[in-house]
Amino acid sequence: MSHHAPLGIAVIGTGKMGADHVRRVRDLISGARIAAVVDIDEARAAHLADGIDGCTAYTEPAAAMDDPAVDALIIASPGPAHEATLLDALARDLPVLCEKPLTPDAESALRVLEAEQRLGHRRIQVGFMRRFDPEHARLKRVLAGGELGRTLLLHCRHRNVSVHDYFTDEMLITDSVVHEMDSARWLLEQEITAVTVLKPARSSLSPRVLSDPQLVLFETAGGALVDVEIFAASGFGYQVQAEAVCERGTARIGEGGGVGGVLTSAAGRWGGEIDQDYVTRFEEAYDREVRHWADATRRGETTGPTAWDGYAAAAVCEAGVRAQATGQRTEVTMIERPAFYA
Amino acid sequence: MSHHAPLGIAVIGTGKMGADHVRRVRDLISGARIAAVVDIDEARAAHLADGIDGCTAYTEPAAAMDDPAVDALIIASPGPAHEATLLDALARDLPVLCEKPLTPDAESALRVLEAEQRLGHRRIQVGFMRRFDPEHARLKRVLAGGELGRTLLLHCRHRNVSVHDYFTDEMLITDSVVHEMDSARWLLEQEITAVTVLKPARSSLSPRVLSDPQLVLFETAGGALVDVEIFAASGFGYQVQAEAVCERGTARIGEGGGVGGVLTSAAGRWGGEIDQDYVTRFEEAYDREVRHWADATRRGETTGPTAWDGYAAAAVCEAGVRAQATGQRTEVTMIERPAFYA
Amino acid sequence: MSHHAPLGIAVIGTGKMGADHVRRVRDLISGARIAAVVDIDEARAAHLADGIDGCTAYTEPAAAMDDPAVDALIIASPGPAHEATLLDALARDLPVLCEKPLTPDAESALRVLEAEQRLGHRRIQVGFMRRFDPEHARLKRVLAGGELGRTLLLHCRHRNVSVHDYFTDEMLITDSVVHEMDSARWLLEQEITAVTVLKPARSSLSPRVLSDPQLVLFETAGGALVDVEIFAASGFGYQVQAEAVCERGTARIGEGGGVGGVLTSAAGRWGGEIDQDYVTRFEEAYDREVRHWADATRRGETTGPTAWDGYAAAAVCEAGVRAQATGQRTEVTMIERPAFYA
Amino acid sequence: MSHHAPLGIAVIGTGKMGADHVRRVRDLISGARIAAVVDIDEARAAHLADGIDGCTAYTEPAAAMDDPAVDALIIASPGPAHEATLLDALARDLPVLCEKPLTPDAESALRVLEAEQRLGHRRIQVGFMRRFDPEHARLKRVLAGGELGRTLLLHCRHRNVSVHDYFTDEMLITDSVVHEMDSARWLLEQEITAVTVLKPARSSLSPRVLSDPQLVLFETAGGALVDVEIFAASGFGYQVQAEAVCERGTARIGEGGGVGGVLTSAAGRWGGEIDQDYVTRFEEAYDREVRHWADATRRGETTGPTAWDGYAAAAVCEAGVRAQATGQRTEVTMIERPAFYA
Repeated sequence: MSHHAPLGIAVIGTGKMGADHVRRVRDLISGARIAAVVDIDEARAAHLADGIDGCTAYTEPAAAMDDPAVDALIIASPGPAHEATLLDALARDLPVLCEKPLTPDAESALRVLEAEQRLGHRRIQVGFMRRFDPEHARLKRVLAGGELGRTLLLHCRHRNVSVHDYFTDEMLITDSVVHEMDSARWLLEQEITAVTVLKPARSSLSPRVLSDPQLVLFETAGGALVDVEIFAASGFGYQVQAEAVCERGTARIGEGGGVGGVLTSAAGRWGGEIDQDYVTRFEEAYDREVRHWADATRRGETTGPTAWDGYAAAAVCEAGVRAQATGQRTEVTMIERPAFYA
Repeated sequence: MSHHAPLGIAVIGTGKMGADHVRRVRDLISGARIAAVVDIDEARAAHLADGIDGCTAYTEPAAAMDDPAVDALIIASPGPAHEATLLDALARDLPVLCEKPLTPDAESALRVLEAEQRLGHRRIQVGFMRRFDPEHARLKRVLAGGELGRTLLLHCRHRNVSVHDYFTDEMLITDSVVHEMDSARWLLEQEITAVTVLKPARSSLSPRVLSDPQLVLFETAGGALVDVEIFAASGFGYQVQAEAVCERGTARIGEGGGVGGVLTSAAGRWGGEIDQDYVTRFEEAYDREVRHWADATRRGETTGPTAWDGYAAAAVCEAGVRAQATGQRTEVTMIERPAFYA
Repeated sequence: MSHHAPLGIAVIGTGKMGADHVRRVRDLISGARIAAVVDIDEARAAHLADGIDGCTAYTEPAAAMDDPAVDALIIASPGPAHEATLLDALARDLPVLCEKPLTPDAESALRVLEAEQRLGHRRIQVGFMRRFDPEHARLKRVLAGGELGRTLLLHCRHRNVSVHDYFTDEMLITDSVVHEMDSARWLLEQEITAVTVLKPARSSLSPRVLSDPQLVLFETAGGALVDVEIFAASGFGYQVQAEAVCERGTARIGEGGGVGGVLTSAAGRWGGEIDQDYVTRFEEAYDREVRHWADATRRGETTGPTAWDGYAAAAVCEAGVRAQATGQRTEVTMIERPAFYA
Repeated sequence: MSHHAPLGIAVIGTGKMGADHVRRVRDLISGARIAAVVDIDEARAAHLADGIDGCTAYTEPAAAMDDPAVDALIIASPGPAHEATLLDALARDLPVLCEKPLTPDAESALRVLEAEQRLGHRRIQVGFMRRFDPEHARLKRVLAGGELGRTLLLHCRHRNVSVHDYFTDEMLITDSVVHEMDSARWLLEQEITAVTVLKPARSSLSPRVLSDPQLVLFETAGGALVDVEIFAASGFGYQVQAEAVCERGTARIGEGGGVGGVLTSAAGRWGGEIDQDYVTRFEEAYDREVRHWADATRRGETTGPTAWDGYAAAAVCEAGVRAQATGQRTEVTMIERPAFYA
């Protein structure tokens, strides 16, 4: 593919996650486009493709891979289908973003590993998205920075509001705690060597079939101990928290409402960092502002703050500068707001 | 322009803010591209254009506007140049995102207003980016929701780490407090009717020419009172905080490290909202993940979590499921990590 | 009076505050006792005195002062009565704790000042209790420590849930903001030189007679600026907050639920102190424990944690020590709980 | 003993904890006095007794118990000495506050239990002081209130700054975790049925002899699971935290700097309570104020806020009331501060 042409992506599997990736690539990813969607449900794939310029619907992953418009794949089909799709993609040397799990068991995952090694270069990225969460990334930086010393304990909380009735005890591990398995390995840079699962009395508000919550313990190759509370039907909110206890202090994320950065306790003080400039603080605001404007402009509209808002600010500034110079309360002089800007 | 062609944007002014908008549109804005850059410094514009496919450099805004590849403008030139550029753009019916200030004074702003009204439809969005900040947007929603009643007071803090030596008292108003002028008008949905500026003893650490900090008071048409602390050389951090005091409670943003959502005090309790699902909590993580993957793929690379990470998670899951079923500590069985994934 | 005899205190005025002081001295103040209570309502004074060993009721402050059992006075009568009582007390060289206000106006306060100076030594302590609030005391220490530099601004919030219908605008100043007048003078160690009062639109939930909330500004001799939000009928809670903005950072108290210590922002970080030992952390718990035990013992009772609790802890400790040594889950061996300890 | 005479207390053991109880009773406990101190170190006991009016020094607990001035005992001697002292006290029907442990092992504790039962009424309170900590008491109230439903998990953190070199692994359980044993039993109102102790890699900063930190798990009769992090040489601070995970939400204490009340997460919101009046908020300030004044008065001194402070407040109030009425900035009129009040 040319450096300048947009990357043609095929999304395999168009359930909740797949459809969300389609929307994401279409609206938010610069330099990429949806070239194909694949689903065993033909109508569903066709319906999704219809709304996207230059997008073809397929029922077979291999057919999409053979479409010359397809440069790369996002796999969001059910886990049991991943192995075949991954092996096909590797056979064609196609880059893949594969939603977790890579495959449903270690044996099949091993076959994928071997195929990628035979290919001789990496083509698979697994969808452990927490590694891209700003809070987790900051926690990783704090731990890697080394000021707190070696991490000895990692306390994790993983709470969902509710789960479907068909959710099983096993899925608590394979669908939920699997995230902590990856984030613990990644944060600690150590493999997990043993697992223990403890079950307290079950919540009477959880689905009958579930022993919920549970406490899962990991031991790691470096001797760290990880405890994970998994509470699938907590009822009150979605919370993902982690607290690393290190030789010289602790660092945690996920407190309060959510995205407040890393809180550390060290040397007799607790607290966090303060942004140092508007670029960091308002980075997301600028991105949203320009995206909002570009999207509206493409629709032929102009929205957002108006020229009237610009005029009003100028009028208030003039009064402000005069008030500052005179020390006096200064009234703002403005025209009546035109109906045009109502 | 076609619905499907990317929006061709000319960025006028390529200083810090303009260059940042060029980078943003190029890397992050789906469906838009930089078609032209304009700067009176010819070499600077040319240098910037060189790195972008299909981008032309100009020294005159009007010349860029006449380029058929240009569909819309971002104005990031110095304020005094805005009026002429805006009038030219309106004459050509071109959509504009204009960095604040609209123009440096109310009289010239009025001329722009009148031109846009003559055109008969809106074409100008002013760059008050706080309206797109997730925290400010949430605060706006809380106030608009009406549960806290009418807003009577708005306490604002605006602290910068430091300013250049040429920063003046007047710029405290026109460059800094202008943001509060807009956010107060927007949050309260009321015009500002009078301004008072109070000066305490100046910080000995601020540039000699500045009376810093200052306390600026706004009165609004609806009787609300706004107090703004502006502290340009606070030394310790960049903080933008706002606390609305309403008839039934308060709501504030900008506490702690920054982006922790809206804290309310009402009915005997203080606190904030908890996310209700992973979509909200990890929205940004998913966006970054896919962007990271698409960017690497376009560079011909694969990075991020590896197939080995997928295999390791599968192996730990298997041990976890067995541990859960047996109640016993269960060792994880894994192959040695291949050098390929080191 | 002898060093060892308990201090005989007369409480003048037995309204809400006076009765509370009677209870406080009786139950919580070691080395002091209530020797007399004074109220113009004879029955009320008598009723209160009846419940206290060795306490006499009076209707006249002077009569109580002449009681040889009285060593010192707490004045909790209405403000207009303070001057006469204070002058009488100074004439007898009696120590006084005088609830605020000292007197209702500066002129009468001056006469008291002069009388105390004629006496030649201090005998009056005024009841500005915030100086004894642990949070305010910590804030004072942080500011006095000098690390944050000179204080330039002090932002204060003073919110009550509700006020009586007879509460007036004037009382917002003399009953409520008077606390900030003292705490600002004390924290900044500067006199207040000018006052401005600003009134936003009134809350529709405040008593009709009140313009509530108000914003009160103080200027100080050293050039600091103090802004005080007074909101008498906020409806949602009682909050007293203060944020000192200094040359090198900020320090604030009263956040969240209340008594969480001093939060500072400085050098790129926000946060607070962590206790360094159990003495600091559990000081109040120890005081309450021993007070609870002594009180129960004086009533002929034994309450609190039982010998059974001691036995259970010992049994669990034994299992814990074994579990620690063996690395195994260890069951706790205990007898059945005797009915005696049910 | 008479209802009105102060309770005569003998403190057995005058090490750090015993000496602290002596100071506490002497200075802070109304209606009680130190009648005797007991220590095998005769000089130490005598020295301590010398400073207290009417206090006798003993080397034998039984001798102190036979002193007619002694009404009750505080036992703060080493644990192995407790059994004999407790049995002697029960034989004399003397009320006891016994520092933990009741006795060092379950078997001896059982003998004490049996003796108290034979006596036929309770005489022993065990010194688990956390039950009197305001934060723990509030957490207990929240859990007992039942709104959050049944408690399923209890996460505890217990961190000390450092320990002596002679501190052993066993003492981590019997000296430190014993507090969580009691607070878990008390908060959950359930006995502990099994214990497991897990050891991660040890901190290289802890004393060589210690495996520090450790993770201790309790199972309870009602099926709750408790995990306790004990970190004896954390280096950074003293932190005692607890988070109860219930069927409908969580409640935790010990966050941030320490004493900020109970934080709950429930029904989509996190947060805490706001005080509803000044009595709650400033209760401790009032107690300290009056205690400070009474103590100074007994020393023949007057300290604290002066009549000058009262005068200054009156003068500022007068300016404030005028400013409020006129809407104008109003200067404060005051006399020069007399040297007397400097």
